[in-house]
Formats: sequence, structure tokens, C-alpha cells
Amino acid sequence: MGRLSKPLVEVLIALAAVIGIGFALLQWFLVSKIKLSEQPAKGGKSKTDDGVCDDDEEGPEGFEAVRKCSEIQNAITIDGSNILKLLYEYFRMFGFDLVADQSEWATEARLSSLGKPDEQNKLPYTSDELGRFNRSTWCLSPFVVFLIISNAIVPTGATSFLITEYKYLGVFMLVFAIMIFLFLGSVRSYSTHSQPCHYNKNQMCKSSLANAVFSTLAFLLGALTSVLSGFLGMKIATFANARTTLEARKGVGKAFSAAFRSGAVMGFLLASSALLVLYITINLFKIYYGDDWEGLYESITGYGLGGSSVALFGRVGGGIYTKAADVGADLVGKVERNIPEDDPRNPAVIADNVGDNVGDIAGMGSDLFGSYAESSCAALFMGAISSFGQTHNFSAMSYPLLISSMGIIVCLLTTLFATDFFEIKDVKQIEPALKWQLIISTVLMTGGIAIVSFVALPPKFTLYDFGNQKIVKNWHLFFCVSVGLWAGLIIGYSTEYFTSNTYKPVQAVADSCRTGAATNVIFGLALGYKSVIIPIFAIIVAIFVSFSLASMYGVAVAALGMLSTIATGLAIDAYGPISDNAGGIAEMAGMSHSIRKRTDALDAAGNTTAAIGKGFAIGSAALVSLSLYGAFVSRSGIDTVNVLTPKVIIGLVAGAMLPYWFSAMTMRSVGSAALKMVEEVRRQFNTIPGLMEGTTQPDYATCVKISTDASLREMIPPGALVMLTPLITGIFFGVETLSGVLAGALVSGVQVAISASNTGGAWDNAKKYIEAGVSDHAKSLGPKGSDAHKAAVIGDTVGDPLKDTSGPSLNILIKLMAVESLVLAPFFAAHGGLLFKWFS
Amino acid sequence: MGRLSKPLVEVLIALAAVIGIGFALLQWFLVSKIKLSEQPAKGGKSKTDDGVCDDDEEGPEGFEAVRKCSEIQNAITIDGSNILKLLYEYFRMFGFDLVADQSEWATEARLSSLGKPDEQNKLPYTSDELGRFNRSTWCLSPFVVFLIISNAIVPTGATSFLITEYKYLGVFMLVFAIMIFLFLGSVRSYSTHSQPCHYNKNQMCKSSLANAVFSTLAFLLGALTSVLSGFLGMKIATFANARTTLEARKGVGKAFSAAFRSGAVMGFLLASSALLVLYITINLFKIYYGDDWEGLYESITGYGLGGSSVALFGRVGGGIYTKAADVGADLVGKVERNIPEDDPRNPAVIADNVGDNVGDIAGMGSDLFGSYAESSCAALFMGAISSFGQTHNFSAMSYPLLISSMGIIVCLLTTLFATDFFEIKDVKQIEPALKWQLIISTVLMTGGIAIVSFVALPPKFTLYDFGNQKIVKNWHLFFCVSVGLWAGLIIGYSTEYFTSNTYKPVQAVADSCRTGAATNVIFGLALGYKSVIIPIFAIIVAIFVSFSLASMYGVAVAALGMLSTIATGLAIDAYGPISDNAGGIAEMAGMSHSIRKRTDALDAAGNTTAAIGKGFAIGSAALVSLSLYGAFVSRSGIDTVNVLTPKVIIGLVAGAMLPYWFSAMTMRSVGSAALKMVEEVRRQFNTIPGLMEGTTQPDYATCVKISTDASLREMIPPGALVMLTPLITGIFFGVETLSGVLAGALVSGVQVAISASNTGGAWDNAKKYIEAGVSDHAKSLGPKGSDAHKAAVIGDTVGDPLKDTSGPSLNILIKLMAVESLVLAPFFAAHGGLLFKWFS
Repeated sequence: MGRLSKPLVEVLIALAAVIGIGFALLQWFLVSKIKLSEQPAKGGKSKTDDGVCDDDEEGPEGFEAVRKCSEIQNAITIDGSNILKLLYEYFRMFGFDLVADQSEWATEARLSSLGKPDEQNKLPYTSDELGRFNRSTWCLSPFVVFLIISNAIVPTGATSFLITEYKYLGVFMLVFAIMIFLFLGSVRSYSTHSQPCHYNKNQMCKSSLANAVFSTLAFLLGALTSVLSGFLGMKIATFANARTTLEARKGVGKAFSAAFRSGAVMGFLLASSALLVLYITINLFKIYYGDDWEGLYESITGYGLGGSSVALFGRVGGGIYTKAADVGADLVGKVERNIPEDDPRNPAVIADNVGDNVGDIAGMGSDLFGSYAESSCAALFMGAISSFGQTHNFSAMSYPLLISSMGIIVCLLTTLFATDFFEIKDVKQIEPALKWQLIISTVLMTGGIAIVSFVALPPKFTLYDFGNQKIVKNWHLFFCVSVGLWAGLIIGYSTEYFTSNTYKPVQAVADSCRTGAATNVIFGLALGYKSVIIPIFAIIVAIFVSFSLASMYGVAVAALGMLSTIATGLAIDAYGPISDNAGGIAEMAGMSHSIRKRTDALDAAGNTTAAIGKGFAIGSAALVSLSLYGAFVSRSGIDTVNVLTPKVIIGLVAGAMLPYWFSAMTMRSVGSAALKMVEEVRRQFNTIPGLMEGTTQPDYATCVKISTDASLREMIPPGALVMLTPLITGIFFGVETLSGVLAGALVSGVQVAISASNTGGAWDNAKKYIEAGVSDHAKSLGPKGSDAHKAAVIGDTVGDPLKDTSGPSLNILIKLMAVESLVLAPFFAAHGGLLFKWFS
Repeated sequence: MGRLSKPLVEVLIALAAVIGIGFALLQWFLVSKIKLSEQPAKGGKSKTDDGVCDDDEEGPEGFEAVRKCSEIQNAITIDGSNILKLLYEYFRMFGFDLVADQSEWATEARLSSLGKPDEQNKLPYTSDELGRFNRSTWCLSPFVVFLIISNAIVPTGATSFLITEYKYLGVFMLVFAIMIFLFLGSVRSYSTHSQPCHYNKNQMCKSSLANAVFSTLAFLLGALTSVLSGFLGMKIATFANARTTLEARKGVGKAFSAAFRSGAVMGFLLASSALLVLYITINLFKIYYGDDWEGLYESITGYGLGGSSVALFGRVGGGIYTKAADVGADLVGKVERNIPEDDPRNPAVIADNVGDNVGDIAGMGSDLFGSYAESSCAALFMGAISSFGQTHNFSAMSYPLLISSMGIIVCLLTTLFATDFFEIKDVKQIEPALKWQLIISTVLMTGGIAIVSFVALPPKFTLYDFGNQKIVKNWHLFFCVSVGLWAGLIIGYSTEYFTSNTYKPVQAVADSCRTGAATNVIFGLALGYKSVIIPIFAIIVAIFVSFSLASMYGVAVAALGMLSTIATGLAIDAYGPISDNAGGIAEMAGMSHSIRKRTDALDAAGNTTAAIGKGFAIGSAALVSLSLYGAFVSRSGIDTVNVLTPKVIIGLVAGAMLPYWFSAMTMRSVGSAALKMVEEVRRQFNTIPGLMEGTTQPDYATCVKISTDASLREMIPPGALVMLTPLITGIFFGVETLSGVLAGALVSGVQVAISASNTGGAWDNAKKYIEAGVSDHAKSLGPKGSDAHKAAVIGDTVGDPLKDTSGPSLNILIKLMAVESLVLAPFFAAHGGLLFKWFS
């Protein structure tokens, strides 16, 4: 029951982060050993007893296969390759030679030019050119890197979605950073004088100008870390797609390993770098802040805001991108032309595959990074004003970071179960293997939480509880973190139950396709609504336990508990789109039926687990948002949020409306963009001779451009809604109304998000259920092309924007509004509520 | 600025109610002059310049038409005819000879037997048999009538939906009445001793046993009044269907008049009898309560609970009934067999038409009756504990009733504008005429509110404001009521904008049908989400103004303001299904194209206005529910509902989930019932020879039975959810959590309800837009049977349960939970929160 010394805490956190990064690089190295440039071994024949028929001979399996896969992979990655190269250089500069095979780079560059012959000579930067950037400048400040990404590259005419997106993002971040600085600085008229602290009036705190400066810095650092995480996720995912396909020739176990290891790279890099950057930032800021922990951790909240702002772009922009392409591809390809999914004749197929990476990998990564950063910031902020914060107990203060550190180690052990301790030999083992990952990590982590709680925390301390003091014991916090962790598992499993086609709910939806698309949609919507119940009860229990035991600090660490196994969660999650694209590449490369069956099995498991990941993301968003909300209320100096006051109730009602407004925008955006895509795809089918016969290549680039343009244009209104609502409400209506708005958006948004995600997931898997035709029931509905299947495809198409755009974007809505309010709380408290001030 | 004397107030209220009833009977008389039993005049040729082509000669227009119409009308009403006869007798007994032509009864009885030859001799009661009931018993107590309806009739084997439904309802009401009595009686262990009042401790109030007895009585009276209103609405609607069709031969103006007058009967009867019964109940209860107004008006809240409980059955049961039939009929008829809507060959067509009356008329009537009763009760309750309540100022106390009285008079004047002052000469005038009704009534009523506010209220008084006193002026209340009234208008118009196909939103949805059903569904959902924004802002403004000016009393009278024009609102609303069925009858009777065009025009206008009515119902439900909620919080003795306490926040999150749970149940119910219906309809098409050719009659009765059984069976889970949630939450978690649940359900339910209703309405009208083909754009999408039209039909089918089952049922959810909590508040406050008591 002792306490850790300060140096030990410092070492432990840094060590965990570094181990996590090392582990990620190791996995990357292992994946990179699969070569895209050489003739593969013909071996693996003995491994085909994997539940899939082994007629491996049909289709191009030899060198031809490798070449085709490379070519397709290139078409998918080309749009991100410029920026990836930049990152590659950036990492190499620091000595991280991520890709062991140095010829890789050359291969990729060559392949890049293959995909679009007309752009052969237009690659924006050669390796040499990149070297011209003064490397020391790069190291000087991540902000400069940002500017380079934002401005330097784009004028060369690269059409890449990500580059364009991040250019917009860069401009937006700059504007928003300036705004944060101006607003927070204005709290005390840009005074540089110290002032009595907000909570501990006996102590002097740094000036509000310092808060403005450091909050802005933290904001930019958070944003940059999120961008990097998203990029790295994209890099490894696109890197892994074709490799997974090639491994599928050797057996399902190898392919699973490749896909899962790649997911793990993403998971561990993100979890570790998020922790490391936050940790470094705190230590750097401490140089200035010294003993003023209240001020220090108040400014650190900017880190969460930065992370979530990027997630807005990732989720909303990425979501519109991917679904415009997907819906457009499906509507013409599957419904009208009756060609299979991922068929290379479909002009939108490349945009669709790029979109999978953009939306699911970069989007999900930045979303979870945001949650992680925000819950850490909220916990640290509440910790700073607790008794151990006031007495400068470093180990107790670092409790949230230690929990995350423990999480990395636990996830590392868990990953070994999937990749090293056991081997997948049959397609039926894939889904259990992924699900065991969740269980193992949760069980191990429960022990880990106990250790951290008893070692890091004093046996007894007081927390700030909205104007009161609350006495808390260290084992209370063990329960807070654990309840969050287990609630996450329950949410994950409930999501699986409602979206996997091995259970009744999805089968009932599939069955309703007998009577056409209308009943399919009705049953799907009903399923989505119903699937809200269990997660909400899990969230309620987590909130009640953590809130009762340790007030808002408890809620924040409960969120952290749910996110403590983020590395494993993300690994599983990223696994999904990687397998999906692997399947797509197998289809496009015309590989044999048995290989396609293997990748389909990988993909099916991935679909379920992707839904689990989404459930997780929403659940944690709810807890995070509540803890941020609590911190906001504390910081803005109101002790109660009384529903039965006019100012609060109108906020509550308006807030509950926001998810609908937001969803209307995102749904419509996908719809409009998809309509444009449909027209383009139809045009190509009608005007390009030989396209249906497969003798001519479609014009993929135009489709990519449609998705890119649509996502960037359509992202503005929902983005503005999220960013401006707290601002306008705070400035004109004041903190009481804003507190109502945040509560309303939270309680309503969670429901919409869960139901949207699960409805979409269920439709997707209902369609797959009919296609796979595993049971007699499924066979009676199929095969592909039957009326029931057509109805299922319509449901699937409707579900696409729900599950991949509107639903996940709502996480961002509820979190971002809360963290923005928290960061700007001093400003709102000082100068907000103009409208009521005018009237009274 | 004076005050009215007590006798004058008594006379004014009674007079308004009686005038309203008289006016309704007059309209009924006017409609009844259209004969179903004689050869119509061949006149009216001169009136055919109504924008519809006048090729009146095709189709059976003479005696044959009348006979056919009668026969079909009979098929629709037969299932309700037994009970309607009973009511008929009931009214005749009191000297109300509603139908001037006495031969009518005989005609109807004869027609009844025509429809189902095999049941010719099974009519449950002849006129004579009915006479055998001791009429004095009938008069003795409405409760006895109830029992008769519940039990006496059913054993005869009548399959009627309504009888069966109301039998269940009767049992449910009895059980619930006993429960209310036991719970409320137990508050002070069934003591018969007086006690100090809850709010005014200086005064003695009647025993809690008295509260239990009178609350139970009020509950039963409310339920009975609602049942009667529903029945009467059904009666006049089915009475008017065929008559409207026949009038359509003479011109669109006559047909409109018939339909609108019939709607007005419903509107005025309901508004007036609701007021009258409430008024009589108060006066009767006062005999016992005397000066104990606090106790009196607390027990009166049972009236609202009774009304809303019936509405639960009407909305949920009726909604499932009608949509199971509708969806089932459409799926096979329109989608598979490609036969038109309302085609008599479709076995489910009668169930569909019965359903229109059950769901839209009885359901909407009981819903609005519930809102009206509840807002009156909430206002009266808050009034009783205000300064004018404590000083026994009768005219001020009667303010809510006076507002309603004024509303009846205003609506009466408004109706004359539609039926007497102007005449419809062109189909294009129908929609404006209906919309002007709303505007005229709102403008006139604003003046009416001013008069009542200045005449009835003292210039200054104090209201109870959650533990504080609030000083209010009479003109404050003018603003409270007016803001509710005008918010209603805005909600109505916004609903119209989003659901009428004369505006862009629905046209965009129609346009999205080009790319198939999936985009149609996506755009429709987005439209529904978007349509939430304006109504919510209207509600917010209404809440803010009324709450700020006059606390919860203000919110209650704002709700009453919105409902003050209920007679006109209901007239417009009931007009919709009447026209719809008139069109159905024209189709089934094989009448000429031009007549069908006229009824279609009537129907199209009705569709839009039905959506307006739904918007109204939801808006008022939100305000009503908030005022009930406020009354509940007052009564249960908690002064603040602080979001940032564990007990409240978990309630809030759980409450926001309830609308989803509830919708999942209702949607699924419709889906399952529709699947059964589809199977039956398919079976009939496949096994009954000559059905498609129209040479054999389908077996309508089996389809009616499927709908009936499904609605009754499927009503139980959602009903239980609504009724048990406040009970379980109150008993186990206590009033704080319950206050969170109610707030959560309110803020989330309103959004779901509005978006569901409008999505469904938009799809419906998008389909009609394509079918009508009025503009070039519409023509490019059509005609009927085109791919775009097929996609539109799928959207329409999905929308059916959303707009007619789930959406409107949510009104009941939010109101009923609030009023149930209010009625049982003394019990929860005394004995609730067991779970937390055990743990602490």
C-alpha cells in the first residue's frame, strides 16, 4: 500500500511508452518480411486443411499474383503515398528505419507510377527533394512540419485526399489556435500577472495569458499527434493489404497473422505515442509552471481538444469519403450491373478501398486517440484540484498515466496470445481468437488496475465534488477504473450479439428480406433501436459506480479504464479494414475461389469486430464526455445544473436535438456525394467501351476526385455545427445553458450513435449471411442475385452512411463540444451569457 | 382588469362546452343529409369546373354507385358496428337523435349483413336486445357502461378489433385503478384522518385515502371520456367515408364540405366533452373536498392519467393494427402484384381501411384528448398551490378552463370560414383552405387569450416555483399562453414544409428515387432528422418564455394554448383519413377517373395536414410532459434536479434510451405483423382462383383478424414498458432518478417522434408526387410502376410504421410516464427509492 517515488514513476511511464513503440515496430518488421517484389514460395500446401476447399490451382497464384496485388495496392495507396513518403522520411531522419527492406521504397515508387500512367512524372517529391528540407527545421517544431504538410506539398498538384484534407485541417487548426489564444488571453485582458488560483485561493497561479499560450500549444501538439497516428495507421494498413492477400495463399493462419500484426502496429503506435507525447508535454510545461499544477493541468486540456478536432476531420470527412464511394459503387455495380463487390471493372472500386483506410483506420484511430487524450486530460485536471494535487503527490497525480502504461504492457502480453502462443488453423478459429483478445486483455488489466491503484495512490484522499469535498479510498478507484473496463467488454459483446450473423437478431433481419427491402429496413431500424439497451445499462452502471465513489474523477478514470486496452482494441479494429481490402485485392487480382474464401472469412470476422470497436468508441465517448462535462461545470463555477430552470432545460432540449441536426447533415452529404458518384460510374459504364467486358480500365481517378471533393465540401457544415455550438451558446447564452446543451447532446447522441452503428452493421452482416449461405436458412434466402439478396443489398447500402459516417461522427460531436467548452470555460465564465446580460 | 364572478365563470364554461357539442351535432346532421339509401340527383354537372377533367360518364355513377359505396363502407365499419350501435343506443337514450334519418339504422344493419353473408344471423345485438339493458343502470355510472362494453358483448363472438381492444383495455384499467388506489392509499396507511396540507401547512387537507379514492375515480372518468371520444370519432369517420365519395360526384367543394364537417364533428365533440366532463368532475369532487383545493386538484390529475392510458391503447394498438394491414397490403399488392392501392382484389384492403380509422382517428383523438386533459390538470394543480389557489379565487383558478372555453368559440367561428363563408371550387383551393383554418384560429385565439387573461386573472399573484415564490402579472400569462399557441402554428408549418411535396425537401427525396430505394431511404432519414430543428426551436422559445414568466404554471398554460385550437386541429386531422378512405371507396367501387382524381386531391391535402396534426400532437406532448414533470417534481418534494448527481444522470441517460427501446418494440411489432399479413395475402392470391381477375371476393376477414390479433398481442410489451418504468424506477430508485428518467425520455423522445413522423410523411408524399406527375420533374420520375416509383413505394412502406406507429406512440410515452409519476408522486416520495435505502 505504499507509494512510488517520483523518479520511478517517471521511468515506468516512459518505459511503457517506449516498449509499446518498440513492440509496434517489431510487428511492422515481421509484416514487412512478406515481400511484394519476389516470387513467393510455392509451399503452404500442407496447411490448406483450414476449413476452406483447397482447389488452389485456379487463378493466378504465382508471380503474376504478386504483380497484380502490387499494382492494386499501389492504386489504393497512391493517393496517400506522397504524404506517407514524407512521413517515411521524417521517421528515417530520426533513425527509425521502419521498413527493413530498403528496396521497398523504390518498389513503391515504381508501382506508384504504374497505377496512373499519366501521372508518371508528376510525383510531387523524390527522395532527394525531400532531403532538401532542412532537417533541423523539421526537428525544431512539430508545428513547422504541420505547415509543410499543409502548404508546401499541395501546390504540386497532388490530388490525394489526405493531403488536401490535412491542408484544410492545417488552416482550420491555425485559425482555431489563434481563437483559443485570443479567447483565453482575454479572460484577464492579456495580463501577465499571477493571480490567486481558481480552486485553492491561498496559492498563486500563473497568469491567464500563460494559460492561453500553453493551452494553444497543447492544442497544436494534440492535433499533431493525432495526425501522425492517423497517418501511421494508414501507412501500415495500406502496407498490409496486399501482403495479407498474398499470405492467404499460404493458409488462413498466415493471413490472419499478417492482418492482425498490422493492426497491432497501429494499436500500439497510437496508444504509446499518445501517452509519450502527453507525458513529454506535461514535463515540458512543468518547466514553466513549476508548482502551479492547477494551471499546468488546465492548459494541458488543450491536448484533448487538439486530438478531438483532428478526429472531427477524420470521422466526418473520412466517413463521407468512404461512404460516398461505397454507396456509389454498390448502387451501380451490385444493384444495376450485377457485378460482384470489389470488381475491378467498377470505376468507384479504388475510391471505395481508399475510403476503407481513410474512414476506418485514420478515422477510428483519431477518434480513439481523442477519447484517450481527453479522458487523460479530464482525469489530470480533476486530480490537480484534489488533495493529492494540492499536496503535489506526483505518483498519485500520475495515476491516469500509470493506468495507461499498465494497459500497454497488458495489451502486449495479450497480443502474443493471438500471434505467437496459438496459431489459427481453421477459419472458424478467427472470430474466437479476436474475441479472446478482448477477454484476455480485460482480465489481465483488472489485475493491473489493482496493482496500480494500490501502489500509486495514497490510501485516502479528498476529491473536489462540485463545491464539496469527497473522501475517497484507493480501492474505490480500483472499482472506478475496473467498472469502465468491464463495461467496455459488455458493450463490445452486446454489439457483437446484435451485429454478428451467427446470432438471432441479424438472422431475423436477413429473414425479413424475403418480403423485400422495406421489411428489411424496418427490421434493421428496429434492431438498431433495440441494441441500445444493453450498452446504455452498462454505461449507466459505470457512471453510477464511478460517480458515486469518486465524483467526476471517478468517471474520468472509468473512461480511461475502458480505453486502457486501446492497443488491443485498435489492433482488432484495424484488422477489419485490412482484411476487407485484402479480400478486395484478391477479387480484383482475380485470385482463386479458395483464397477469396479465406479472405472472406477474415473479413467476416473483421466486420463483427469492427462493430465491437465502434461500440467501444461510443461507450468511451460517453464516459469521456461526461467527465469533460463535469470538469467544465467545475471550471465554469456553477455548482448545480438544475434541469428545472429555464436556461438549463432549453439547453437540454436543444442539445438533444443536435445529434439529429448533425446526422441530417452527414447523411445527406453521403447521399448527395453518392448520387454524384452513381452518375459518374453510370457514365463510365455507358461511355467507355469494353468496360463491362473487362477489356478496358475504368477511370478510377475521377471517382477518387468526386469522393475527395465531396468529403471536403460537405464536412464544413457539420464541422461548423460542432465547433460553433459551444462557442455561440457560451458567448450568448452563458454557461448554464451550455451545460444543458452538453448534457442533452450527450444523452441523446449516445443513443443515436449506437443505434446507427448497429443498424448498419446488422444490415451489412445480414447481406453477408445470405451471400455466404452457410446454414439451410441462409441458403433458402440466397444465392447472390436472389430477390432476398437484392433486398439485403439495399439495406446494406442504407446502413453504410449510418454505420460509417453518422454514427461514429457523433462520438466526436459529444466529445468535442465538451472538451471545447472545458478549454474555453474560463472565457465563458468571465465574458459569456451576453444575451441574458443585455436583457436583464 | 376586473375579475369575473363565480356564477358567471360557471355559466361561461358550461355554455361554451354545450355550444361546442351543439355545433358538432349540427355538423353531423348536415353530413347525415347525404343519403346512402336513395338514388342521388344527377345534378352537379355545372360544378365540374373544379380543376379536374369532367368525364363523369364512365364508371357506375348512379344507384349502382351508391349501392357499392354502401357495401364497402359496411365492410369497413362492420367490425366496429356492434359497438357503434351500442353507443348509438346510448346516445339515443339521452335524447340525442344524432342521425336524422331513422331508416339509416335499418340500412346499416342490412348492409352489415351484406358484407359477410356467413355472419348474417350472428349480429350480436338487435335494437331490441339492447333495450333490454336496464337504462337506469346505464345512467348510474359510466363505469358500468365500461363493464358492459368489456364483458357483455364479447362472448357473442364478435371479432371486432375495437371491442376486443376495449375489452383488454377494460381489464387493464380495472387493474390499474386498483393499483392506483392501493398505492396512494398506502401513503399514510389508509388513514381516514385529515392532515396538514403538503404546500400550505397551516391548512388541513383531506386524508390520503380520499386522495386515493378520488384519484382513482378521476382516472376512470378520464379513461371513459377518452374511450367515448374515440368511439364517436370512429363513428362519424366511418359514417362520412362513403358520403364523401358520393359527394365527390357532385364536385370537389361538396366532397370537401362533407369530409371537413365530419372532421369538425370529431373535433368539437372531443374538445367540448373533454372540457365538460372535467368541469363536471371538478364540481362533483368539490362537494366532498370543499375548500381543500390542494387535495381536490391533486386528485383531479387522475383524469389526465386516465385519458393518456387510453391513448396508449389507441396509439400503440391502433398504430400496429393499421400499419400491419397497410404494409402487408402494399408489399404484396403494390410491389409484387402491381395492383393499385385500395384495390378491392387485395385481401388486406379492408383491414387497411379499418386501420385508417382506428389509428388516425381514434388514436389521434385519444392522444390529443390526453394532452388536453393532462395540461389542464397540470395547470389546475399548479394553480391550486398558487396565491389565487390559496385565497380561493375561483375565476383565476378556472383560467385554464376558460382558455379552453374560449378556444371552442374561436374554433367554431373558424370552422364557418371553411364550410359557410367560402366555397371550394377548385382542387387547388383545398390545401390553402385547410391551412387558413390554422392561421385564422390562431389569430382569433390570440385575441381570445388576451380577453381571458385580463378578465379572469388578478393583476398580480404569486406562483410556487420549486420552493420559491414567483410574482407574476396577468399579462405575463397572456404571453405564456400565446407563445404556446404560436409555437404550435410554427411547428405545424415547419412540418408541412418538410412533408408536403410542394416544397423542395420532399422533391429532393423523390428525386433520390432515381438511384433506387437505398438513396431514397437515406435522404428520407436525413430529411426526418433535419425536420427536427425548427420545431425544437419553437418548443424551446415556448418553454423559455413561459417558464421564465410563470414557472411551471406558465409551461402548462402554454401547452393549453397550443391545444386551445384543438377543435380545429382535430377537424383538419380527421379530415385526412376520411378523404383517404373516400378515395379508397371510390377505387373499390370502380368509380370514374375524374371522381378518383377529386378524392385523390382531397386525400393529398389531407396527407399534409395529417402531418401537421402529428407535429402539433408532438409539440403539445412536449410542453404537457414538461409541465407534468414540473408538477411531479414539486409534488415529490425535491427542489432541484441536478444533472451532476449520480442518481439523476443515470436516470437521464436511461430515460433518453427509452424512446429507442419503445420504438424498437413497436417497429418490430409492425414488421412481424406485416410479415404475417404478407403471407396471408400471398396465400390468398395463390390459392383463391379468380382473385387477380376480380371474379372472386378475397377473404377480408382473415386479414382483419391478423391485424387485430397482432395489435393486441404486440401492444403488451411497449405498454408494459411505459407503465412499469415510472413504477419500478420510483419504487426502487426513488424520485431523483425518476426525475432524471422523465427528463431524459422527454428530451430524447421529442426528437425521435418528430423525425419518425416527418420521415414517414415525406416518403408518403414523395411517392404521391411521383404518382401525380404534376411537374416536369415529377413526370421524369414516374409514371407508376417505373423504377423510381418502385423505390418510392419501398420508402413509403418503411415510413408507415415510423409515421403512424412509432412516432405518434412516443407522444404517449413521454406524457404517460410523466402523468403516472405525478399521480403516484405522493407514494414514491413516501415509500420509494428502496434500492438506495437498502444500500445505505
